[in-house]
Amino acid sequence: MDRYNGENARFEQGIPLTLDDAIDRLTASIKADQRIRHVSAAYLPDRREVIAATDKLMWLLFPGFCGPRDLTDRTLRIHVASVLAGVSRVLFQQISGALRYERDLGGQNAEFDRHCAECDARAHQIVEAFVAALPGIRNRLSLDVQAAYDGDPAAHHTDEAIFCYPGVQAIAVHRLAHELYRLDVPLIPRIMNEHAHSVTGIDIHPGARIGSYFFIDHGTGVVIGETTVIGDFCKIYQGVTLGAKSFPKDERGRLKREEKRHPTLEDHVTVYAGATILGGDTVIGAGSVISGGVFVTESIPPGHRLHGPRWKLALRSNPEAPPAGYSI
Amino acid sequence: MDRYNGENARFEQGIPLTLDDAIDRLTASIKADQRIRHVSAAYLPDRREVIAATDKLMWLLFPGFCGPRDLTDRTLRIHVASVLAGVSRVLFQQISGALRYERDLGGQNAEFDRHCAECDARAHQIVEAFVAALPGIRNRLSLDVQAAYDGDPAAHHTDEAIFCYPGVQAIAVHRLAHELYRLDVPLIPRIMNEHAHSVTGIDIHPGARIGSYFFIDHGTGVVIGETTVIGDFCKIYQGVTLGAKSFPKDERGRLKREEKRHPTLEDHVTVYAGATILGGDTVIGAGSVISGGVFVTESIPPGHRLHGPRWKLALRSNPEAPPAGYSI
Amino acid sequence: MDRYNGENARFEQGIPLTLDDAIDRLTASIKADQRIRHVSAAYLPDRREVIAATDKLMWLLFPGFCGPRDLTDRTLRIHVASVLAGVSRVLFQQISGALRYERDLGGQNAEFDRHCAECDARAHQIVEAFVAALPGIRNRLSLDVQAAYDGDPAAHHTDEAIFCYPGVQAIAVHRLAHELYRLDVPLIPRIMNEHAHSVTGIDIHPGARIGSYFFIDHGTGVVIGETTVIGDFCKIYQGVTLGAKSFPKDERGRLKREEKRHPTLEDHVTVYAGATILGGDTVIGAGSVISGGVFVTESIPPGHRLHGPRWKLALRSNPEAPPAGYSI
Repeated sequence: MDRYNGENARFEQGIPLTLDDAIDRLTASIKADQRIRHVSAAYLPDRREVIAATDKLMWLLFPGFCGPRDLTDRTLRIHVASVLAGVSRVLFQQISGALRYERDLGGQNAEFDRHCAECDARAHQIVEAFVAALPGIRNRLSLDVQAAYDGDPAAHHTDEAIFCYPGVQAIAVHRLAHELYRLDVPLIPRIMNEHAHSVTGIDIHPGARIGSYFFIDHGTGVVIGETTVIGDFCKIYQGVTLGAKSFPKDERGRLKREEKRHPTLEDHVTVYAGATILGGDTVIGAGSVISGGVFVTESIPPGHRLHGPRWKLALRSNPEAPPAGYSI
Repeated sequence: MDRYNGENARFEQGIPLTLDDAIDRLTASIKADQRIRHVSAAYLPDRREVIAATDKLMWLLFPGFCGPRDLTDRTLRIHVASVLAGVSRVLFQQISGALRYERDLGGQNAEFDRHCAECDARAHQIVEAFVAALPGIRNRLSLDVQAAYDGDPAAHHTDEAIFCYPGVQAIAVHRLAHELYRLDVPLIPRIMNEHAHSVTGIDIHPGARIGSYFFIDHGTGVVIGETTVIGDFCKIYQGVTLGAKSFPKDERGRLKREEKRHPTLEDHVTVYAGATILGGDTVIGAGSVISGGVFVTESIPPGHRLHGPRWKLALRSNPEAPPAGYSI
Repeated sequence: MDRYNGENARFEQGIPLTLDDAIDRLTASIKADQRIRHVSAAYLPDRREVIAATDKLMWLLFPGFCGPRDLTDRTLRIHVASVLAGVSRVLFQQISGALRYERDLGGQNAEFDRHCAECDARAHQIVEAFVAALPGIRNRLSLDVQAAYDGDPAAHHTDEAIFCYPGVQAIAVHRLAHELYRLDVPLIPRIMNEHAHSVTGIDIHPGARIGSYFFIDHGTGVVIGETTVIGDFCKIYQGVTLGAKSFPKDERGRLKREEKRHPTLEDHVTVYAGATILGGDTVIGAGSVISGGVFVTESIPPGHRLHGPRWKLALRSNPEAPPAGYSI
């Protein structure tokens, strides 16, 4: 019996290896554990497809920056039509699959019931609503790009923000994902935002409601939780957490999953690097500024600045410092 | 003489450029510096191959979530066999190369001695042991996935944790890499974990020993050092460092590389976002909780909560706050 | 009229969807907003091309580690010549396009003036100067690799630093990008460094001036601003920010974009994890050490250690701790 490909093959280096037993044990392990495998679930959302569709949507949000760069006014509509057609088809399949998946979680037997007409019909409506929302999303992103330029002295032009800024990339994906979240699409919005998280280091839950003219600078380590609400003209820096204070549990000791657990920032709020703001009742009032590194679990009135303590830093001579002019 | 491709070519735009001299100088620079190049070392581990094998292993850890999704109970064994055969072949080559590489570091001349039978034999044993460990790794990952669901109110189902959570991805790669680390494979475990670090922002050294039912939420900025020991049922958040206090040096002033330098977390320990725990002797006792942002260099007894100071935050009015209703 | 591809097509699942209107609205939205699209600008820099060229440059910086691994002393020059020719061609195109782009920002009409001889000539000079700088960049990187090994007890060999360390990858890309920044190339250096940021979590502005033998350990969350100056033999850890204190504005309320806004580290400075150093006038003197997590906005004299406050941590019993031996 084969060890590698069914023909009693040996390694190309001539080293045989008995895999039969390993294959049996691994197959049995997969059959035994229901939690981390899906068999006979071809309709499950496919991360690669979702990510590819997200990338293609960037071609529509930022034409000429992403995707083909030989567009003219004349070819623009053809470009839009062709990209939109492709993306809609993929989104339809993925969304229908996700709805089917969610329905099956309810307990129905998925094995022999491969088609779900109801899921298709709902996916159709969702794709239409999503596509119809794209011009509005572009309007908001245009303001976000302006906010990035206005907020960073290192930027020379708004174009630089589109080409280079992880904060712009993260909010672009978020505005798409949030639209699907609002349309009650399971799984897919989270897959989109976690992909953006991987690329940018910025972790926004697709449920977060974020106003216009929003800017995240640098961004690595930012966490914005599911029930966060952010007003217009807000700005946050790397390492900021807008998180949950504690997780309320129900009478059976299970986490309650539907409460507002994350803070609210009103309009014109700035949160500097590394600050942590926790709690569903915590409201940072309009026009307030939160200093870097502080830890906030209570509301701040509008029009204030919250400073951390003036730490007493201790300065001592460093006996290990190399003498002046020293080099290894 | 050619400037670009051997035929006195010019740029396609018609701009000639004299590259000959640059090529000579760069070639000379490569020959002169031994530290950052390898010539005649075709057996060196190949990052792309290692990463591709890691991705394929995910097909076996989470079938149906990763890789082909049209599996049935009937085709499952064939799937496992074919993926395992391919992965084993690549791992064998990479591991044998890494062992050969390590041997050559000892000073033997690598240039003309391209084969190493001993390395092949050892690589063979290692691949067998590694493959045999996969079912056990799946058991632990299944608990990790449950921990992710149990620990995050934003998750609607364990599936979401597998599809989306960087913490699950990082621990999955770590459990694979740690197995190879225990089998004394050079370089490859670190390449695997650094790839996961790049994708997830979570930096786990493959040497870290991590118990069952482990969950990292959000994850960006987490650092877990080589000699860290983590018990069962532990949970850590973004930005947590489990690090070294200082680096002991030997009598020649060189770093000692074998000591326990990183902390121990006993069972049921939770460490909130941004906390830093340092030192090889630092033990966080079972059932203890470390608050966010604190800095810990001493042991904490079991069953306690460590809180940071209650900072006095200073609230002042913000003269630059825009008036209510203001928009740009 | 077609809804998907011009032929009254229906979804493959048989679900029709009226896209015509959506296409029109989206096309109109793109035409209406000048800020986030470029039409008729085929010369715009292309992120994919810039990133591909950066990856190829790694083949020249670290031969045998990156790219083909069957190099011999005999084939080395051919390898260098072929990679350098390809990279130079791509860089020439991208740089010429970036210069053309910058010129057009000045207000000239780009639509019908597709060629810019002046940009080509300047791009030619820049590519020559950049290529001539590569051996010098390799010399510095060789020291950076040594610094990584010397600074981390978890490393077993300098090779491990090249294969695995995000800090080495980030500084390698930075040294390339900084050279282009010094040659006044628009956009492209930033695209290169933001790509490295995405891969490593380390955000270095290409303008930062960084001395020899530099090491960033772990790296996730590091931010190094545009006008930062770092001496030789410096070392920084994950989560360190070298940032701006505040953004001076000109008389029209716009950000001043040319001032020194970020700190200076003299030689032999170490900054531990999570420390924040802000301000263009802030100078950390030679041989000084900044502790983890501190917030520094004033200069530190040479040869000192800056410690944070000794926080009073409060230890309380944790009523929710599971009893010893408990498991779920």
